[in-house]
Amino acid sequence: MKLRDLGEFPFIERIAPGSLTGDPDHVLCGIGDDAAVVEDGGQVFVISTDMLIERVHFRRDTIDPATLGAKALAVNLSDIAAMGAIPRDVLVSIAAPADTPVQELDEFFSGLKALASRVGVNLVGGDTTMSRMDLCIGVTVIGVAPRDQILYRSGARIGDRILVTGTLGDAAAGLLILTDPPAIDGTLANALITAHVSPCLYLEEARIFATSGMVHAAIDLSDGISSDIGHVCRASGVAAVLESDAIPLSDELLALCAVKAIDPLELALAGGEDYRLLVTADPDGVAKLRSRLAAATGCPLFDVGEIVAGTDVFLREPGGMRRPLTATGWDGFRSTGS
Amino acid sequence: MKLRDLGEFPFIERIAPGSLTGDPDHVLCGIGDDAAVVEDGGQVFVISTDMLIERVHFRRDTIDPATLGAKALAVNLSDIAAMGAIPRDVLVSIAAPADTPVQELDEFFSGLKALASRVGVNLVGGDTTMSRMDLCIGVTVIGVAPRDQILYRSGARIGDRILVTGTLGDAAAGLLILTDPPAIDGTLANALITAHVSPCLYLEEARIFATSGMVHAAIDLSDGISSDIGHVCRASGVAAVLESDAIPLSDELLALCAVKAIDPLELALAGGEDYRLLVTADPDGVAKLRSRLAAATGCPLFDVGEIVAGTDVFLREPGGMRRPLTATGWDGFRSTGS
Repeated sequence: MKLRDLGEFPFIERIAPGSLTGDPDHVLCGIGDDAAVVEDGGQVFVISTDMLIERVHFRRDTIDPATLGAKALAVNLSDIAAMGAIPRDVLVSIAAPADTPVQELDEFFSGLKALASRVGVNLVGGDTTMSRMDLCIGVTVIGVAPRDQILYRSGARIGDRILVTGTLGDAAAGLLILTDPPAIDGTLANALITAHVSPCLYLEEARIFATSGMVHAAIDLSDGISSDIGHVCRASGVAAVLESDAIPLSDELLALCAVKAIDPLELALAGGEDYRLLVTADPDGVAKLRSRLAAATGCPLFDVGEIVAGTDVFLREPGGMRRPLTATGWDGFRSTGS
Repeated sequence: MKLRDLGEFPFIERIAPGSLTGDPDHVLCGIGDDAAVVEDGGQVFVISTDMLIERVHFRRDTIDPATLGAKALAVNLSDIAAMGAIPRDVLVSIAAPADTPVQELDEFFSGLKALASRVGVNLVGGDTTMSRMDLCIGVTVIGVAPRDQILYRSGARIGDRILVTGTLGDAAAGLLILTDPPAIDGTLANALITAHVSPCLYLEEARIFATSGMVHAAIDLSDGISSDIGHVCRASGVAAVLESDAIPLSDELLALCAVKAIDPLELALAGGEDYRLLVTADPDGVAKLRSRLAAATGCPLFDVGEIVAGTDVFLREPGGMRRPLTATGWDGFRSTGS
């Protein structure tokens, strides 16, 4: 069997068994969440790593090096935020063809360091080496958090509301524009492209969630909500019902979809790389969370559905019918990317 | 300017400035050593990351997947050992073409986990994704150590002896055999190939060094001693004199070099991937270190030279003349690899 026939998540399930072969007691969370969580000497560390490969995750002709550097860091910071933790340090590995202009790499690191500086993270190490063909970027972020404030995928409870921190599908729409530029207004196009290349970060919001006592589970939306909410459901042993008319869609997305004659809801459910935070929270806490976010950062909080008993993910349409929602989001081994 | 014209180490020097943009006080060691060292809540963490790229660091036709998995972990464990620390957890990222057989990746992880189990390390996370062309492997190892036992490159003192834990050049010889098989004895060839694909690990030895109070600096020999001792000298503000007739050469290396008509000393000084530990130690402590290693693990300790005042690295030949030794080891952007 080839990797493309297996898919990414079944592959991860093959790796996990027998992975804790050292002292397992200090591992609070291993393979299967947004980040690993380990404890040593009473201090809890949250560690996330991601690999970005040219022609799979990005194209050098559609993202400038500084923006790419910032995005490579941002997607890892998003994983740390999804655990409710505070990022502290980052290691960056880069493998580049020998004929890569040094200026391009200087700009990559400038962009990465500018974001690191903005969020107060240290670049403490990494690896620099050569590749034959494509640029390969590996980023590892280490964060800290009090043990009792970490948000796992596995904490969702029946009755929880499903909340997201922003509109969905914009990043996927931006990718569509980059790969097949439509005849639309430039400002509108730029807003969607920005959503794709410079995702929002929710570090402060993550800490509000983590310290609220009202949030039970969290994940960042990297693969598309239809896929990502499935991870929460499987980890928590619950099911989810998303309300189709509650999925937040931006005006820019609606305008693009009108021109392209595609279903905006499809992009919002299955489109990857939004990097919004999704949390499940006590229904009684939603109003309080919303007002705290509004006061602290102005971040909105959209209520898109409910955690229910069962398995699988469902979409309920305005008529009231609910239908199973197939996970159609990004799969690292099946999509061909941008 | 292209990357190949700049070289790896000047590139790293361009990245380092302005890298500590968070709380710098908790960073005990940033870019420029074998691993980063950070402290949080009184606990010290040592973190190393490495990227291995197909057709640069390995060829899939000359190393089997299980051996590759173990080696990907081993080279990072070697960095942790070079800091005197104890490895605890590992994260593994892998990007593979979609047509990669799943069995190959299963074997990769089996080999990696077998070594992890042997050394008591947990596989706690990572990333799995697709590449277009080459297999890309990223490994991050996290270790712990008491703050006052960490061995930095910068600690070498004038008068220190330069010590290595094994023969040099064997891994480079193994690579030569794989790329251009000579007509030599199979057992001999296998010993050298093994040195290349399955490097020795010195985790226990590292702890003996770290707790001895007699070792001042350490590095693992990944690029070749002529290059690696240079890193120690620059970090410590000292010079080094290597004694040409003290460089330990294996019988297998000598036999191969006789057949190939190449200079074994050249391979020993400039050949990469030996992954022996190099330490600098108080001359009065050498005998004691040697007997402790012999008793604990049987590991030899070869005295190959001395730390002196000045800059640069010199080689002294039996006649007594010393000549500057150019760093001819592996440079990630200049070599084309195996």
